[in-house]
Parts: sequence; C-alpha cells; structure tokens
Amino acid sequence: MLVRQFSRRSYRAIFKWGDPKVFYEVKPAIRRFVTERLGVDAERLPGPVHPGLQEVSDLAGPRLPEGVCERLERIVGQDNVSTDVHDRLRFWTGATAVDALRLRLGRVQGTADAVVHPRSEQEIVEILALCQEQGLAVVPTGGRTTVTGALDPGRSGIALDLTRHLNRVLGISEADLTARVQPGILGPEYEEHLERRGFTCGHFPQSFEFATPGGWVAAKGAGQQSTYYGKAEDFLVALRCATPRGLLATRDFPRASIGPDLAGMIAGSEGSFGVITELTLRIWPRHPQVPFCFMFHCFDDGADFLRTLIQAGVGHPGVSRLSDGEETDAAFQLDGLAGTGADRWLRRLGYVPGQRALFIGASEGDRLTGAALAARAHALALRRGGLPLGSAPLRKWAKRRFHDPYLRDDLMDMGVVVDTLETAVPWSGLARLRRGVRAAIKSRPRTAALAHISHAYEHGANLYFIFMSPLAVGDELDDFQRYHGQIVDAIVEHGGSLSHHHGIGRLFASRLPAQIGEVGHGMIGALKRYLDPERIMNPGALGL
Amino acid sequence: MLVRQFSRRSYRAIFKWGDPKVFYEVKPAIRRFVTERLGVDAERLPGPVHPGLQEVSDLAGPRLPEGVCERLERIVGQDNVSTDVHDRLRFWTGATAVDALRLRLGRVQGTADAVVHPRSEQEIVEILALCQEQGLAVVPTGGRTTVTGALDPGRSGIALDLTRHLNRVLGISEADLTARVQPGILGPEYEEHLERRGFTCGHFPQSFEFATPGGWVAAKGAGQQSTYYGKAEDFLVALRCATPRGLLATRDFPRASIGPDLAGMIAGSEGSFGVITELTLRIWPRHPQVPFCFMFHCFDDGADFLRTLIQAGVGHPGVSRLSDGEETDAAFQLDGLAGTGADRWLRRLGYVPGQRALFIGASEGDRLTGAALAARAHALALRRGGLPLGSAPLRKWAKRRFHDPYLRDDLMDMGVVVDTLETAVPWSGLARLRRGVRAAIKSRPRTAALAHISHAYEHGANLYFIFMSPLAVGDELDDFQRYHGQIVDAIVEHGGSLSHHHGIGRLFASRLPAQIGEVGHGMIGALKRYLDPERIMNPGALGL
Repeated sequence: MLVRQFSRRSYRAIFKWGDPKVFYEVKPAIRRFVTERLGVDAERLPGPVHPGLQEVSDLAGPRLPEGVCERLERIVGQDNVSTDVHDRLRFWTGATAVDALRLRLGRVQGTADAVVHPRSEQEIVEILALCQEQGLAVVPTGGRTTVTGALDPGRSGIALDLTRHLNRVLGISEADLTARVQPGILGPEYEEHLERRGFTCGHFPQSFEFATPGGWVAAKGAGQQSTYYGKAEDFLVALRCATPRGLLATRDFPRASIGPDLAGMIAGSEGSFGVITELTLRIWPRHPQVPFCFMFHCFDDGADFLRTLIQAGVGHPGVSRLSDGEETDAAFQLDGLAGTGADRWLRRLGYVPGQRALFIGASEGDRLTGAALAARAHALALRRGGLPLGSAPLRKWAKRRFHDPYLRDDLMDMGVVVDTLETAVPWSGLARLRRGVRAAIKSRPRTAALAHISHAYEHGANLYFIFMSPLAVGDELDDFQRYHGQIVDAIVEHGGSLSHHHGIGRLFASRLPAQIGEVGHGMIGALKRYLDPERIMNPGALGL
Repeated sequence: MLVRQFSRRSYRAIFKWGDPKVFYEVKPAIRRFVTERLGVDAERLPGPVHPGLQEVSDLAGPRLPEGVCERLERIVGQDNVSTDVHDRLRFWTGATAVDALRLRLGRVQGTADAVVHPRSEQEIVEILALCQEQGLAVVPTGGRTTVTGALDPGRSGIALDLTRHLNRVLGISEADLTARVQPGILGPEYEEHLERRGFTCGHFPQSFEFATPGGWVAAKGAGQQSTYYGKAEDFLVALRCATPRGLLATRDFPRASIGPDLAGMIAGSEGSFGVITELTLRIWPRHPQVPFCFMFHCFDDGADFLRTLIQAGVGHPGVSRLSDGEETDAAFQLDGLAGTGADRWLRRLGYVPGQRALFIGASEGDRLTGAALAARAHALALRRGGLPLGSAPLRKWAKRRFHDPYLRDDLMDMGVVVDTLETAVPWSGLARLRRGVRAAIKSRPRTAALAHISHAYEHGANLYFIFMSPLAVGDELDDFQRYHGQIVDAIVEHGGSLSHHHGIGRLFASRLPAQIGEVGHGMIGALKRYLDPERIMNPGALGL
C-alpha cells in the first residue's frame, strides 16, 4: 500500500516532503514498530488513508485586481508571474503537519492570487510599492519548509518566490570569513559553492536540502551542528531587507555599539517586516570531525554529562545529540539492533531498554582542539557511567540525517500522524520539562514519544519531541489539533519556549503575547507599524 | 604642580577620574614623554591649567515643579532625594573629555533638577509615572563613566541613581551558570561576590571599578577579556526594563525562535527606552590564564597573526591586545625600557622603534585547552616573525589595566588633552582604517597617536585610538571639538563603526542616522515612540 506514484498536479505533489522522486525505505522493522507500538496493522488497512491523489481543481480564479497581473508582468517579465492554480496552492503551503492533513482531505484554506519570481532587489521594491497601493499581502517564500504555518495569510496576496532567480553567492571574503549570498539559494548549492573554496556554511537543518538562507534567518533556524556554528541569528553578520518603508541595509561590523541591534530585529521576523534581499553570513574553514558517542544509563545522566562538557571551557562540539529512553529504543528497533548480541551485551552492562540514552557527538573546528574536547568528553562521560561506543552511531545517524522526514507521508498513509515540537529551556528546568511534556504526549493511548537534546548552550539546551499516534478516523483534523494543543500547553506550563528554532508562524501566534509579554509583543508591533504601515507583509505571522 | 588636593564640592571633584583618593604616579618618564613628544615642558608652566578647583556655586535653584519634590520623597523616602547643587551637577556629568574641559573652565551646560535614589523596581515604576505626568526627563545613572555624553539631556529632569540601593546579586544558578543582578552593583563588588563562589563575570572594562551591569548592557560595553567572554550583549541572558509603557521582562531561554530579539532591542538603547531594573547574565567558572606575548616587526604582521589565530578553530583568547608602533614605543618609554639592553637586543633582531608591535595575549577557560591555544599561537606567531616574550608584558599590563585613566587629569593640568576613540571593522578593512585615522590624528603637530586592537572576532576586530595633544590656550573647547570631529570623520570615512563599545550618547548622535541608515534609525525611533511616547527617557541619546 506504499504510495510511490502520483500526478504532478495532485494535492500529494504539494504536501509530500522533499524531492518528489525520493521515498523512505519502509523496512519491516518500521511496520513492526507501527504495529507493536501504535497498534496499527498497515497490512490490514483497505488502502492508504486519505492519500491526496486527486488533482487540484480550479478552486477559484485569480483574484488579483484588474490590471495588477499585467503590472506585475511588466516588473518581472511574463515568465515570472504564474496564476496556475497548482502553483498558487503550492506556494501558499508549507510543511506543517496540519496542512498536510488538510490537503490529504482535499480541504484548501486559501491560495495565492499569483506567484511572482522577482529577479532583483529593485524588482522587489517595485512589487512592494504596487502591493502596498493595492492592499495585497506579500509572502516571501524560499524552500517552504515551514512547520509553523508561516505562509498562508488567509487573505488576497502574492507569494514572492526567491528561489528561482535570487539564488547566487555574490562573493566570499576569505580574510573576513564571510559570504554574501542571496536569500533564495538552496542549502546544498550554497554548501557546494563554499566547499569548492575549502569552506562550510555550518548550517545543516533537517530541511537542509530545500531550505534557504533567507528562511534560516527569517525563522532563526538551527542546524544539526549549531552547538558549534550557532543558530542563524548567531552567524548572521549583516542583511539587506526591502520593507514597504524603504530599504534597510545593516553594516558588517564584527560588533558595534551603535544603538540596538537592527539585524536582530529582522532575524525572527518571519517576513512580517519586509523581504530579505541579501545576507552576509559567517563561513568556516572545513575540518574533519572527531566523533565521540556514548551510552548512558538514563537521560538525566546524559544531560548532566552534556551540561558539564559544554560548561567546561573546552569549546563546543558540533553534533551533540542525546536521545531519551524511548528514542534510543526506537533507534535500536528501526536499525535492527534490538535483541542482537550488542543489545544483550548492553543489557548485561546495565543499559536497559526504556532507560538507556544514546549520545552522539562530534567536534568541529581544529582537529587537535577537537581531539582534546573528545578526550575531555570521555573523561566526563565515564564519570557518569557513560559507555564509549566509538564512531558507528555518528555514521549511522549522519547517513539518514536529512532523510527521516520522508517517512511522514508513509506513516500518514497508515493513518498515523507524526509531528515534532521543540523548545528551549535553561538546564535547571530541563528534566522537569521533558517529563512534563512526555506525560502530556503519553496521556493518549497508542502513542510514541521520542525526545532528544540536539543543541546545547552554557546556560541551557533545546528539547526536541517527536510524537506519533493514530488519528481518529473521520475526525483527523480536530483530533490532531486538540492533541497538538495539549502538548504545546505542557511545554509552556513547564517553562519552555514556544520554539527553539522552528519559529512562530500562525501555529503559535495566539500564544506569543503571553510568552513574551504585552510590552514585548507591542515592541514588535511598533516595528511592524513603522516598517509596514499598510500591513501587507505576511500578515498574521507572529500575530501581527 | 601636581594637583593632589581639592574640595569635595569643587568642579574637580566631579570631573576627576575614579576614586577621589587615587592618583597617577607621574614618573619622570611621563614628563619626558610630554616634553619630547608633545612639546610641553610642565616645569615651565606657571601652574596647573584650568584645574577647576573652585567650588560649584548655586547655579540655579531646583527647577522641579511645585510639589514634585515632595511626591518623589513620598515614593523613595526623604533621604533618597537630593537637590544639592553639587549632586545635581555630578549626576548629570559623565567622563567625556569635553565635559571635563568644560567643567575645568567652570562652564555648566545643565544640572539635574534632583537626584533620586530608588529602592525597588516598583519605586522606579512610580517615578516614571510621575515624571511622565510632569514631562520631566529621567536619566538612569550607574557609575557615570560614559565617555559619549550620555547623561545630560539638556532639559529639566531627574537623575535616577541606581547604585545606592539597587546593587545586589539576587541569585546565582550554578546549573545554568547565570547570575541575577540588580543594575547598580559596581564591578568589583559583583566580581567579589562571584569569586567567593568560584565564578567570574568575565567583564573587565577599563572603567571596571565604577561601571555597573546596567550601564554595561545599556551601552553594549566590552571588557579587556571580551574576545573570550563576549561583549555585554553577548553575555546578557535576560533583563527586566521599566518603561513608561510598562514593564518588559524578557525570558531566560538559552536561545529561542519567538520573534525578533527583545533583549537586543534594550541592549544599546542607552536609557532611551526605560530603566533596566534586573539582569540575568552568564557567569563562568574561574580558570588560571595561560599567557602568550610576542613582538612583531610591524602592526600588520601582528594583525595577520591575530586574525589567523582567531580563525583557526582553536578557541578564543581572552586578552588579545596588539599595540601599533607608536603605542609600543610609548609603552617602552613609560616603562623605562627604551634604550635598555632589552631594547638594544630587540633592535639588533630587527624589531625597530616606530615599527615593532607588541602583542599581549592570554587564554581563558580550561587550562589544557588554553595551553593548546597558546601552542598554536606560538606556531602562528613564529611564522610571521613574532618573537616570544614570555608572560612579563601581560603582568606589566595587568597591573595598570584599570589605572591609566587616572593620568588624564594630570595631563590636562599640563594643558594636554588625552582622549580615546574606538571603532570596529572587518579584517579586510582594518589596515586601511588604522592608517587613515592615524593620518587624521597626526595631521596636527605635536600629537601622540597610539592605537591597538583589543577585541578580535572571526570576521573583524576593534581599533582603539588614544590621542594626546596640547590645546590652544584660551580656545580649548573649540580647538578640541574641531580636532575630535576630524578624527571621527576619518573613522567613518574609512569604514569604521562610530563605536565598538563606548556607545553613541549625544557625542555621536547626529552621525548615527547616516551610519545605520534612515530606515534603521527610524526603527529605533518607532520603539522609542511606543515605549516612551512622552519622550522622557534620556531624551537626546541616540538622537531620539
């Protein structure tokens, strides 16, 4: 019952994750996992659940006001304006789980009036002026990998696709270790460009294949090695942003005391203020990694290890991923390790299923410094009962690091939703937060709740939750949204941030003022009113 | 002719740097330096030039509106409101060179109407409400070490002194490596408190003895070891800020993607938006330093060394100070090294006066990691002709690290102004900037122009200029301001920031919009209008 073919004009072509030709290899171990843990026997299903194979019909004609399409075409050229219905829906849709559920049911919230592919900053300036005049919303889009509903503003407007033309590296400064890039280049192309010169961008989110630097910064993304390289807001040096008020160009000073941080007001603004048209980002010389992987008796031991390592003044690792008991078990099961000799040996040493916690780490930067870090990691891990595992877990993880999201569609075909929520919290609140959120996820029967830390800082860390559960047939959307809301409630109640690196979008917008305070939200609103007085820029994101 | 006594109610008691009982030891070497380099023979002066020994007379009565003084007293208690004229001038005056020159001449620009010492955040909230009602300016003050004219708004208002009561450490989290502090604690008290628990605050500006965390953050200060510990905006975790709009309390998440950075909008706002009432700051375990000092043939060799070290992926040193030729010479002369055997030996090795450049470095963090950093530093330095000098230069520098500013008053007594300007620039522009600014300083005869890098980042560094010159007798103020303006012009023209860590205040306010752009300045203005609609908070700072 695996769906491996579908029309290019189907709903599935829109919500399917990633490369249309790439699929997850659904091994028997995964079927067993779904059957044993979630109580769903895929073999006995009559067929894929709501596979979304129907073609997108002409939902509604283009709603652009008279003459606007022609004016857009005069700005960007005829080939760079599309009013095709499939395009209009596709560019208005991200990768949020609830959107996938909705499209599987053939339900459409809205579509763009047109998709526009600007060729230059100047064209963007002209488009903004036109849209401001017409009161049309403008939603800048890159790889459209948002999982927070950051794209559809629920009103007339255009999607501004930055990937078709604004996708070049404009220059590299080897002296300053910076690159000037356009917002719409895809991760792999950017990294290949840098790799040829001996550098790396340091940013490898799970969405790496499709996400773009404009989106990294707009949503304050993090990559799988960000504990070393920093989040997007950390490696951002300067930016240009076209706003309805005019062009903002921040300076590339390494640090400065020239008033509040302007680039930091655009980072995380999720398209609410303007269109990022150029970025200056830090880059790094490439170095080989030094891996260090351990098994701990429990998650709390592993978290204590990671905290003391990161606070030891010996530098930061890149990969620093600690899985909790259930995630470690799931990895064992899916990798076919459960019940093998290695598994029995671990049990005999006291690393028992349901408790044991796998840590995967690797250094970045200079190799000797990395070796010293790895040595210190071993010393600290041994003191906390950690068992050194060599480099195999890192290699296994690295192989599928961008691949796991492809499984979502197959699971949904089995009637199982899989989604992720992530948060950040000071170390002192981490154990309580994990337990509280886990309890909320587990409050539902037939549920998998995997959690890991993947980003560590001196004063805290993130927690990343993956939850899976079969949805109530016929009531999928409401069932999911209720469940999702309960988990978010638990995160907030236990002192976690609404997001560590996914952003707010519309999914968390109504909760944002309570989290950052009325005055804080008002400050963001004041910037909105100044930069975008007619409220055309991605209205609704961040609750603005 | 050294002035070592003065009335506690004199102008001198206000502009004299630092501890009233501490003076610089003006050795013969300094007199020789002043005579030989600046053409001023202090022995032949009739006496100290404009020493400002007269007492501050009653300039003008308190201008507080009827009944306001009583209302302030009701809020904070009678002992915590002062309308004494000396207080009112003192708390309205920072350490800006032009202010010192002005007060030496007995010229007063303005005074506070009252000095108020609040005891709690709640009292500050009440004071802001009262001042908003009355249209009175409010200037939050800490150690008043500003060198950018950040205190006197040039209109009626009150100075809000945070050092008398709001000076406690509220708590330390050993798990999170953070401290909660009030804004008005002095550097040494804060550091002693942490030291007793085995920690350090990591922040040691030259004004350390008198500056306060509130000011560090409000002006985005940097310390002498900030290359490792970061600037104030880097080690800031969270803050509370009482604004006329209401209280802002940012969260202590290690990182988050919950909209634009709110704490980063307050950092660098220099009191324009509100009063910082509490800070959560990162702290670090104490580690011994590993020193590494070198002599380079020239500044550019040293800068190339420092750049490659900081970009090598081996971590960051703390102290990382590279003096240019003239500063290295001045250190030799003032330390009595010029002409000694060591000096002759250096010359024979090709490290010649006027060219050779002294680098002083030391690691922070784990000692073994620091030793590896020092080893790498030696390898990189040797490749660029650097001569290892052991640890003596670090010890010499550390001894007087907070003491040099005390010399200013003695030099001014000799009719010589000494002032500093500092900037930040990407590495690729650093050499050109230093030469251009140096040329501007040297365009005047009888001038010393010392320069150093003291803060290094992967993509750039700061440059710190110290200039000394005798001023035109009888025309000191205008002469100084013209000269100062020319140097700032040169900084901006050569691509430097208006400041790396001193801030903008009123000294650079008129130049700020050109540096950050009209839209950028407008964004700050939008925050001002929202948070402080009546424009009572430190009006004029940042040009707001």
